[in-house]
This record gives sequence, C-alpha cells and structure tokens, in this order.
Amino acid sequence: MIETPYLLFLGDAPDQLAAKVAQGIKDWRPENAVGQFRMDGCKADMKLADMDLAAAKAAGAKTLVVGVANRGGVISQAWKKVLVNALEEGFDLASGLHNLLRDEPDLVAVAEATGRKLHDVRIPSVKYPIANGVKRSGKRMLAVGTDCSVGKMYTALAVDESLRKMGAKSTFRATGQTGILITGGGVPLDAVIADFMAGSIEYLTPDNDDDHWDLIEGQGSLFHVSYSGVTLALVHGGQPDALMLCHEPTREHMRGLPDYQLPTLEALRDTALPLARVANPACEVVGISINTQHMGEDEALSYMAEVEKRMGLPTADPYRQGADRLAEALLAL
Amino acid sequence: MIETPYLLFLGDAPDQLAAKVAQGIKDWRPENAVGQFRMDGCKADMKLADMDLAAAKAAGAKTLVVGVANRGGVISQAWKKVLVNALEEGFDLASGLHNLLRDEPDLVAVAEATGRKLHDVRIPSVKYPIANGVKRSGKRMLAVGTDCSVGKMYTALAVDESLRKMGAKSTFRATGQTGILITGGGVPLDAVIADFMAGSIEYLTPDNDDDHWDLIEGQGSLFHVSYSGVTLALVHGGQPDALMLCHEPTREHMRGLPDYQLPTLEALRDTALPLARVANPACEVVGISINTQHMGEDEALSYMAEVEKRMGLPTADPYRQGADRLAEALLAL
Repeated sequence: MIETPYLLFLGDAPDQLAAKVAQGIKDWRPENAVGQFRMDGCKADMKLADMDLAAAKAAGAKTLVVGVANRGGVISQAWKKVLVNALEEGFDLASGLHNLLRDEPDLVAVAEATGRKLHDVRIPSVKYPIANGVKRSGKRMLAVGTDCSVGKMYTALAVDESLRKMGAKSTFRATGQTGILITGGGVPLDAVIADFMAGSIEYLTPDNDDDHWDLIEGQGSLFHVSYSGVTLALVHGGQPDALMLCHEPTREHMRGLPDYQLPTLEALRDTALPLARVANPACEVVGISINTQHMGEDEALSYMAEVEKRMGLPTADPYRQGADRLAEALLAL
Repeated sequence: MIETPYLLFLGDAPDQLAAKVAQGIKDWRPENAVGQFRMDGCKADMKLADMDLAAAKAAGAKTLVVGVANRGGVISQAWKKVLVNALEEGFDLASGLHNLLRDEPDLVAVAEATGRKLHDVRIPSVKYPIANGVKRSGKRMLAVGTDCSVGKMYTALAVDESLRKMGAKSTFRATGQTGILITGGGVPLDAVIADFMAGSIEYLTPDNDDDHWDLIEGQGSLFHVSYSGVTLALVHGGQPDALMLCHEPTREHMRGLPDYQLPTLEALRDTALPLARVANPACEVVGISINTQHMGEDEALSYMAEVEKRMGLPTADPYRQGADRLAEALLAL
C-alpha cells in the first residue's frame, strides 16, 4: 500500500486532461490530497493549495504522486529535479507511468540512499495465485462495459460512495493504475501474466462480511477484441453477484478499432450474464450506468428514460445524477 | 533450438494428465524421445523404456525435457537432484514451467560450470503488439474445449496432419509449452502479459495465402474460471473462420475445480460462436473432436454417433480414428 496523504505532482501538464490521475484523487479521495505541486507552465489546476515540498511536508504529506501523464508516459528530465528533491525531503514517490520510476538509475540511487520507496503501480508487486473458483463470502459488483473507457471506474467509485453514505459496508477495488493511485492499492490487471489474471481478482476481493459489497472496477469489454480476455478474467475471478452495465451512447466505433461497432446493451447483458453465472449462478444484472458527457441535459435524460424502460433496469449517469439509485438496486438484491 | 533427442522427465507425476507435455512429444515426435525417467511414486507412463541418466546418455539423448507439470508450474525440491545430476551428466535441460530453470540459482550455477543450456520455452521471446483487430487473409481454425486438457492440442495437430496429407496448405500454431517443444515455435500464451494476449495471437497467425489454414492450439476453456480470459484472447486474437469443439465425456467436474460442472457441447457452441463472430462474422462451428481415451471402443463409437446426430456436425476422436473427416469439414467451408 502507498502511504497517504499525498502531494499531487502536476508537473508541466499541458492541459487539465493530462492531469486526470490527480483529478481522480482529488474528486474521490480529497482527504488523501493535502496540496498540489505545479511547475512553471503548468496548465492544470486541481483547485488545491499550491505547495512546495517543505510546505507539503509540514502539512503531513507522505508521498509525492505523479498525477500527470506526458505523451508516451515518459518521466521528463524537467521533472527529475523535483522527484529527486522529494526523495531527499523524505517523500516516497508513486507513479502509474509506463516509464517506471525503478528504471531511472538516479531515482533508484537517491531512494536507496534516503530509505524512501518508489511505487510503480503499473506493474504488479504481488505474486498472485491461480484462481481456484471457490465461493467467497460477501457480495461483489462488477462494472462491465460495451467498450473501453465508458465510465466503469467512475461508476464503481460512485456506487461505493453512495453505499457508504447510506451506511452500507463497501470497498472500491481498483484494477487499473488510476484507481490504485486514488485508493492506495489494487491490482494492475492489464500488466498481470495471463494465467494469474483471474487469481489476482480473487486475491483482490477476498472473503468478507455477508453484507459487505466489493465494487470492482472493470477493464476493457467482452466485445473489445484487444482486451476481452482481461474482461473475462474479471467476470470469472470476481464471481460477481451483480453486474452494472456501462455505456457511452455517442461512441461511433469501438475505441481504437474503427471497423468494430459497439454492441447493444441487450447484447452486453446477454453475453456477460451467462458467463458470470458460470462462476456465480446467482448473478444478476442490476442497473445501467450511462456516460452522457457528450449529450445535453434534455437529450441525456430522455435517452436514459428510454433505456430504463427498454431494459427494465434502473438507469443513471452517476456523474450528472449521483449513483444512489444504482446503489439501492444493489442493496435490494 | 533445443538439441534432440530427448529423455522425458516424468518426475513424481500424480496422474497421466500431469505428464501431457511428455505425452505430446511421444505421440507427435516419437523419434525425439529415447526414453522416460520416472521417480518413486510416478503415476504416469509413456510406455517408453525407463532409463536412468547414464542409460539415456548411452542411447544418445541430448536434452532432459521436463515432461510433467505441477499445479502452479513449480520446480519441486524432489526434482532438483535429478535435474542437477542431468546437467552434470552432460544433458541440457528444457522446461515449459512457470517456475523458470533460470530462476533456480543451483541449476544456473551447475549449468554454467558444465557448459550446459537451460531452455525455458515458456518465456515469450518477442515483444508482442496490442491487437488491432484488422481482418487478415488466409483461413484459421481454433480448437475450443468444454474444459482444460480435453484434447485441443491433439485435435489441432491431427487436423494439420490430415490437411497436409490431403495436399492442403496448413500450419499448426502452438500456444503452449508442449506445442512449442514439439514444433520449435509458437506463443507461450499463458505467460504473456494480459494486455498483449490477443496481439500475440494476431502475431502468431499473420496474413497468409487465401487457401492456407492455420490450426490454432486452444488453451483453457471459456467455462474454466481460472483460465477463461486466456481462451477469449485466442477467440478474438485468432479471428477464426472455424471452431472445432473439443470434449472429454467422462470428466466428472472441471479440471482442478471440484465445484464446477462441465458445460454441454451445445452450451460451448452457443457461447463460443457469438463471441468469435465479434472478430469474424463468418465464423462457423465445423466439427466436434471427442477424447474417448477413457471409453471402450463400442461405447466410444456409440457416444460419437449420438453426438453427431444431436449436433448435426462431423464428430470424431482424432486419436482413435484420425482427423480426416474433421479436415474435410474445414476444406468444405
């Protein structure tokens, strides 16, 4: 686990979108973010206090989190001085970049000299077991999508927040680097060796109280030919009691695959549910989460009303409307 | 490549299935196997001459091949003494286990001291791309199973042999360590990083002549919760034109999963075909391969006749009967 709270490093982010890791932390675990560190020319702003390393240290920050991605996921030389200083000042470093902290000899040398930790959340730090399929106690929800990047992480985080607000027991379970940095732990599933994918999800979502919900972040899509195997490992390793269907209605083709159309929500339901029931015969589809960020308010509401009627399931955009109705559907199961 | 012929190491295999690597080599390249080495308690038997290291050396064996797999792919301490002795006696070692020969300091030390080679065929030797889903020329068949270890590799090897005997263009494409040890090339799919699984299969089965068939070895099962993600990566990365359903009728539960029943052949067809059509809308199920090794002749023939009638597809056991009828079904597509 990564020590919290964090100082969020925004570097020289060219725009707000480049700092989406920092945005996720600020939105979902604001208590983990004591401030932001921005270099000259930074165009992103989390509306947190701007702090230098000494001020963040005085405010209790333990880890400097790289909350920004460069083109190519590279650690730029412009950042290096700050990262080295942070280690010298007593911070651990955490990053989800492809360019690993541990592959930078100067960072490794300073971390060793100062006794600080380098957390590369993109690669696994655990030797996961092979899945055994044994039924686990507690409840689990998995977000499954018609495509990649349709809001599965956002949905799981929002349902987790709603459940906890209602006094229910729940835990968001991260399966990607942004989710891991937000919560401080999880499985970087896309970097796990094939044979251990499902086992890593069993490890991530162990036995729990009968009334506890794990909200498992989805990855990929059963219909996305590049990543569908990762998705099926989540469906079988997670042995979900509940599936939440996630969709972005304005997408014109599968992400990165111009020749592939998105499936309908019906096709997603009819494909995912029988597969999920292999691992958990009691599994049900409980609701639908729509990402309406590219729709106007009226268009979004009328689209969701139509889907809700057609599918006979609670339908909401957690970003516009909150996830309380989706959380209630889980509790009613 | 690996020097032949081999001495097949069966270790303390708990049953015949645990030694399927050795079985595959013995069945498909018998000229490469001069004998077998069995430890006390070994329950597998390839019906080869039992030899100690000196006898195998005298018979010309160059490499000791680990022909047995433990759950989790571990090199047990019980095996170590034999492997070390083999290096000292002048054998190279070859293994497809997850637990790499090169990660065992004692084996590495003895191999260096004796000038012998350690071949870990499980290690990917290529940086695979992420799958792009683009339609490729040539034809592809994928063997899919109701369970693990039901005969998918045998089926693909046998259909390949039948096609070549008929003068058709075909290539067996290995996706596991046994197939790689048999043919000298392939993708060790279960050791590939999750994000690159489907891409590795696109790489393995590139554009080819329009009348050329790739016979792709299957892995796992869409219904086996430990490995189903690996299987779906094959279905989508392979973009098969033809699926061959593989089944072992006497299996009482999914391999390694006592609480899981095998699906019916109908369930396999109805699950695999729609998923395959995401990547190749023209895909068809063309035949059924039954592993009848635990059935008597009459029982096997009457079972296959019943399946053929019920499913309306050519049904055969390639081991008992050859794969000509299954190969003809491909050519008729």
